[in-house]
Amino acid sequence: MLHKLKIEVCDANLALKDAGLVILTWGNVSARDPETGHIVIKPSGVAYEKMLPEQMVVVALDGRVVEGDFSPSSDTPTHLELYRAWPEVCGVVHTHSTYATAWAQAWRSLPCYGTTHADNFRGAVPVTAPLSLDDIEGDYEAATGRAIVHAFDDLSPMDVPGVLVGGHGPFTWGRSARQAVENSIVLEQVARMAVLTERLRAEVQSIPAHLRDRHFLRKHGPGAYYGQGRGNA
Amino acid sequence: MLHKLKIEVCDANLALKDAGLVILTWGNVSARDPETGHIVIKPSGVAYEKMLPEQMVVVALDGRVVEGDFSPSSDTPTHLELYRAWPEVCGVVHTHSTYATAWAQAWRSLPCYGTTHADNFRGAVPVTAPLSLDDIEGDYEAATGRAIVHAFDDLSPMDVPGVLVGGHGPFTWGRSARQAVENSIVLEQVARMAVLTERLRAEVQSIPAHLRDRHFLRKHGPGAYYGQGRGNA
Amino acid sequence: MLHKLKIEVCDANLALKDAGLVILTWGNVSARDPETGHIVIKPSGVAYEKMLPEQMVVVALDGRVVEGDFSPSSDTPTHLELYRAWPEVCGVVHTHSTYATAWAQAWRSLPCYGTTHADNFRGAVPVTAPLSLDDIEGDYEAATGRAIVHAFDDLSPMDVPGVLVGGHGPFTWGRSARQAVENSIVLEQVARMAVLTERLRAEVQSIPAHLRDRHFLRKHGPGAYYGQGRGNA
Amino acid sequence: MLHKLKIEVCDANLALKDAGLVILTWGNVSARDPETGHIVIKPSGVAYEKMLPEQMVVVALDGRVVEGDFSPSSDTPTHLELYRAWPEVCGVVHTHSTYATAWAQAWRSLPCYGTTHADNFRGAVPVTAPLSLDDIEGDYEAATGRAIVHAFDDLSPMDVPGVLVGGHGPFTWGRSARQAVENSIVLEQVARMAVLTERLRAEVQSIPAHLRDRHFLRKHGPGAYYGQGRGNA
Repeated sequence: MLHKLKIEVCDANLALKDAGLVILTWGNVSARDPETGHIVIKPSGVAYEKMLPEQMVVVALDGRVVEGDFSPSSDTPTHLELYRAWPEVCGVVHTHSTYATAWAQAWRSLPCYGTTHADNFRGAVPVTAPLSLDDIEGDYEAATGRAIVHAFDDLSPMDVPGVLVGGHGPFTWGRSARQAVENSIVLEQVARMAVLTERLRAEVQSIPAHLRDRHFLRKHGPGAYYGQGRGNA
Repeated sequence: MLHKLKIEVCDANLALKDAGLVILTWGNVSARDPETGHIVIKPSGVAYEKMLPEQMVVVALDGRVVEGDFSPSSDTPTHLELYRAWPEVCGVVHTHSTYATAWAQAWRSLPCYGTTHADNFRGAVPVTAPLSLDDIEGDYEAATGRAIVHAFDDLSPMDVPGVLVGGHGPFTWGRSARQAVENSIVLEQVARMAVLTERLRAEVQSIPAHLRDRHFLRKHGPGAYYGQGRGNA
Repeated sequence: MLHKLKIEVCDANLALKDAGLVILTWGNVSARDPETGHIVIKPSGVAYEKMLPEQMVVVALDGRVVEGDFSPSSDTPTHLELYRAWPEVCGVVHTHSTYATAWAQAWRSLPCYGTTHADNFRGAVPVTAPLSLDDIEGDYEAATGRAIVHAFDDLSPMDVPGVLVGGHGPFTWGRSARQAVENSIVLEQVARMAVLTERLRAEVQSIPAHLRDRHFLRKHGPGAYYGQGRGNA
Repeated sequence: MLHKLKIEVCDANLALKDAGLVILTWGNVSARDPETGHIVIKPSGVAYEKMLPEQMVVVALDGRVVEGDFSPSSDTPTHLELYRAWPEVCGVVHTHSTYATAWAQAWRSLPCYGTTHADNFRGAVPVTAPLSLDDIEGDYEAATGRAIVHAFDDLSPMDVPGVLVGGHGPFTWGRSARQAVENSIVLEQVARMAVLTERLRAEVQSIPAHLRDRHFLRKHGPGAYYGQGRGNA
């Protein structure tokens, strides 16, 4: 079942590796099938070198495994929290990419220092609040998902399609697995540029809101004029 | 039309990717045909993996599309401002390369800390002034080009063939697309070296003007003796 | 003799090179054969490009060469100290990987700043104490091994499977050569992330012990639920 | 003439590119033929992609071109000063590798912070003194060579086979082109590690002289025991 989506999810996982965002068995990509509402996700701890579409696992939105010979990613409950909270989201990515993880480990949100950031993220990428001891010792992965959703209480997840889980690493999302992967690639790049920017000017400010919006909106939304009439939205 | 120049521009775009200066669909290269005065430029948002010479777009100096099935790069108006202002320039490159973009995001001009810099840039690479709100909400890309030209009011664009657009990223140029690409590669390298140099010596000075000129002039201009009698000018 | 283990050790050495942890003839991997108790180790100063399983050297736990046409790695006495002290260890790796070596050169233990670290190392990776002049001018490589073992007087080498030898570089280990290599890869990654984390927040703290243990134990030990029922322990 | 040495020099130049130490047409390698005393050197400004052994240029120790259809590297007079001053040296390399160049641009000698450095360089790698205005405007490249030799007035060039030319970049040397290339590779690595080491501990000290010498001498000189009985000397 969902054979085409399994290929997409498998390809998206391999794209993470090709982009240098994951090593070993780190990272995972999932996607939602809009018709059944089921989620297709990478199996846990499988080597990228040997990954095949038929190894992808199908889970229901409540976490039940619908199909698959492998255990789903141990981060599956985190992904499911995002899908449950945000109906527009049809792809989720988690990596331990170096620079984004460094921001997460520093427990800092990532400021919007330039148009490269604004092209995909309409403002700072937030960092989650620390989990309680109960959450860490209880349903830890689901609690991580709830902390992410909570960070977007006053922020649209489609305007800022990513987050830094404090002490852990980044998650990104989008309208497809492919888009979520692109956002992970951009997040890592702008996290790296931001480290350098702060080194070059200690008191650097975020770019003005109108410049940020000009860039975000020329790629996303109804008036987009970047690309061949398809926009990125 | 301009089939040979389209190949050159397509190759130059692919060279950016090979040099690690662009990812995804970032970056763009254009070139001027000296005879017709037309500009050949990369289409907007097309993947490097599938880029072909016949997809390059021909535009007139006033921005009119002369030939092409694709929309030209959304940065085309910026390129055109440079071609209109500087007749010697026949190639323009824009990237979001990591280190040059970090300097641009820090709103700092890039000092000439060594001969690697002086070999291609005869002094500091300037940063543009901020755009006004009207410019950002109006003809933003053309205004970016005007800000670049303005940064060279007292500076020769052939002595310093590149600029940092504040909060955005670098543009470089040259007498051909190939030369403009080489200048982008060198700019990224010296931007990286300069970050490290400042870390190793907080109060580092630019190299003396006579050392800088010795290096620039041994590669460029009438007395050049670098290379096989062709110089780089 | 030990043909299968020689292949494993040769492959593990080549994996170091593929992972970017070694250049030239730097680095070495060894493994213990549980039956004979012998150690198979890389020959000294042999190029990775030409390395073959039959070049691996078999040494006894007391350092005697049991089989091999080549001299064993000059670091062999260091490996042997670890095997003698720690019966669970069946694979040892030494590299001069950039970031881990920088921490070693700074004579600092590597704090646990995130879950990426905690997934493989249950706490800070210690740095060894300086060797005495007698140790350096005497049986230097064995003394290095004793200094490593001493750093684990109050720490389980299976909880923290790696060390930073002050002024020198990292060693890691595991239940197999493959596992020791994985720990070297992870150590280099988290050493890099930790440099960046400290730059982004000067006063950063280690993650809480319960978060660290949650991650370590979901991959290692009896209750592990990461991977396909094999865990990493 | 000197066909075998031309192949060695061409291969050594290509090895610089493979090691990531040069881009574009940067960098150059030369070697001395012990019998004739002639020097074989890379031609100026030739692309690495198209470099062939027969393009290498043969020059006499006084700078006269003995054979070759191409102009020799513009840095040839610098190489010749080193060969004239140091009879043991039979290979010289110049690069603009990123980290070594940053130290040169910061006008700082590179301290010996660890055994990775000591394995090839028996102490700090010195930085040259600034050239006078007359030297820069006169026989600039030969003056650069004299400044390098001057930096070794009280130091053996075989103990420390490299230098940082202030404001410019590194030169290394050895008993062959291959050895000089290896020293360039190691210099870049330890220059990078040293930047990181200082970031992690502002007041870091060089390693003790006896540890430095133990490492240098286990690879070089009469008692060397690293490698397969060949040493590196």
